[in-house]
Amino acid sequence: MPRFRMTVEYDGAPYVGWQRQDNGHSVQGAIEKAILAMTGEAISLKAAGRTDSGVHAFGQVCHADLTRDWKAITVMNAVNAYLAQAEERVAILDVQVAPDTFDARFSATKRHYLYRIVNRLAPTAIEAERAWHVKKPLDHEAMHAAAQELVGHHDFTTFRSTHCQAKNPNRTIERLDVSRNGELIEIRASAQSFLHNQIRSFAGTLKLAGEGKWSLADVRDALEARDRTRCGPVAPPWGLFFMQVDYGDVTKLLRYDTDEDS
Amino acid sequence: MPRFRMTVEYDGAPYVGWQRQDNGHSVQGAIEKAILAMTGEAISLKAAGRTDSGVHAFGQVCHADLTRDWKAITVMNAVNAYLAQAEERVAILDVQVAPDTFDARFSATKRHYLYRIVNRLAPTAIEAERAWHVKKPLDHEAMHAAAQELVGHHDFTTFRSTHCQAKNPNRTIERLDVSRNGELIEIRASAQSFLHNQIRSFAGTLKLAGEGKWSLADVRDALEARDRTRCGPVAPPWGLFFMQVDYGDVTKLLRYDTDEDS
Repeated sequence: MPRFRMTVEYDGAPYVGWQRQDNGHSVQGAIEKAILAMTGEAISLKAAGRTDSGVHAFGQVCHADLTRDWKAITVMNAVNAYLAQAEERVAILDVQVAPDTFDARFSATKRHYLYRIVNRLAPTAIEAERAWHVKKPLDHEAMHAAAQELVGHHDFTTFRSTHCQAKNPNRTIERLDVSRNGELIEIRASAQSFLHNQIRSFAGTLKLAGEGKWSLADVRDALEARDRTRCGPVAPPWGLFFMQVDYGDVTKLLRYDTDEDS
Repeated sequence: MPRFRMTVEYDGAPYVGWQRQDNGHSVQGAIEKAILAMTGEAISLKAAGRTDSGVHAFGQVCHADLTRDWKAITVMNAVNAYLAQAEERVAILDVQVAPDTFDARFSATKRHYLYRIVNRLAPTAIEAERAWHVKKPLDHEAMHAAAQELVGHHDFTTFRSTHCQAKNPNRTIERLDVSRNGELIEIRASAQSFLHNQIRSFAGTLKLAGEGKWSLADVRDALEARDRTRCGPVAPPWGLFFMQVDYGDVTKLLRYDTDEDS
């Protein structure tokens, strides 16, 4: 059974999140339904990250095993056609045949997220579901400085949801950069993996630093407290974008393997 | 009666267009309703440009005369509060007190539009209502070269809707630039004023040039034919953004006058 690796873009607004759930329409369910329509196979997708309701993706990655030896481009075009017909806000950007050892979740060597804040007095009409609107002027340099307190290997109990299922609260944040482009503040986060709500917890806390309410010491103290109640407010999901997943050497191998289809 | 000048952002997707109409919900109607709720006055807004259904704006400008001498910031905040409550996709970015001689439409010295094309095989989920998706690879340099044939003072009968109400088909296109940023192709157009559907007609024609179907001579011939049937296909409205309106010296005068409110 050949394994297919798919890169997926979606608008998170109309979905209960990536994961199939009984209480609503999920991105996973939308793609699985399209694959069922195409192949007759009821498969279960596995993804690099289970994004929450409202969170968007420009580069989610998932994999599925299908019975037939489809050409990758055929899978991509057919699934996209079914998604379009069903008026889903989901698009398959790339499909590649992957080795059996490839796992969208466990083979990932790095995950990249972007959190967007529109920082201005006026509300945002066009970006309403794509950014967090913060009226009070934020000092993005203070936010960046505060972010550096969170980079590195730490116990992030303060910055994860109480619903987080990870056994280990330790993670290594490789990058947490804050920059400004006019009214838009961008927070870019990279790590091999993140805890549940970790980036939104970071974003809410960095906002406090940007407002001047929290000093660098406050951020450091909150981290060191390992206490969820010490976290700043959790930023809303609609500012968060799952941008990219790296698979180290696996990625290169795959690209080479499927050159004819891409 | 003080005159208020407003800069407006909107997501065009849910609206029949800028102009109030009997057959559906308009941007103009949404703002007028908010002003009625705030002031008790049923006013009629006048805008710099009447955008079609689906067309977005980052910088539409309109004006209204109100009985009371409101502070500009009060008008902005109150109208935005009503718009948010009504779940409109419209935001007032700026309000300024303007002289009686200011007219959002007739005082405009330049209008700036952006047309966005996502140029890739995969459909676009996040930008579905914000860009035209074109699968076939487009040569943006060929598009830019073709665009230069349209710059300058011409009779644009070929590039205007048959419903265009302007008496004179002559316009002076000051800028028509095509550039590429990864998968995104941006067409930037500036002129004192445009004809109905002119930029979407340009975009559809430039796509033909980008596909290699039309040469520079074809574009020139179509322009010189002054014949609507010679235009390329009209590009869809959802790729078009009304970016900015310039008012020359009037703008400067207004900024000075209302310094205390901004």
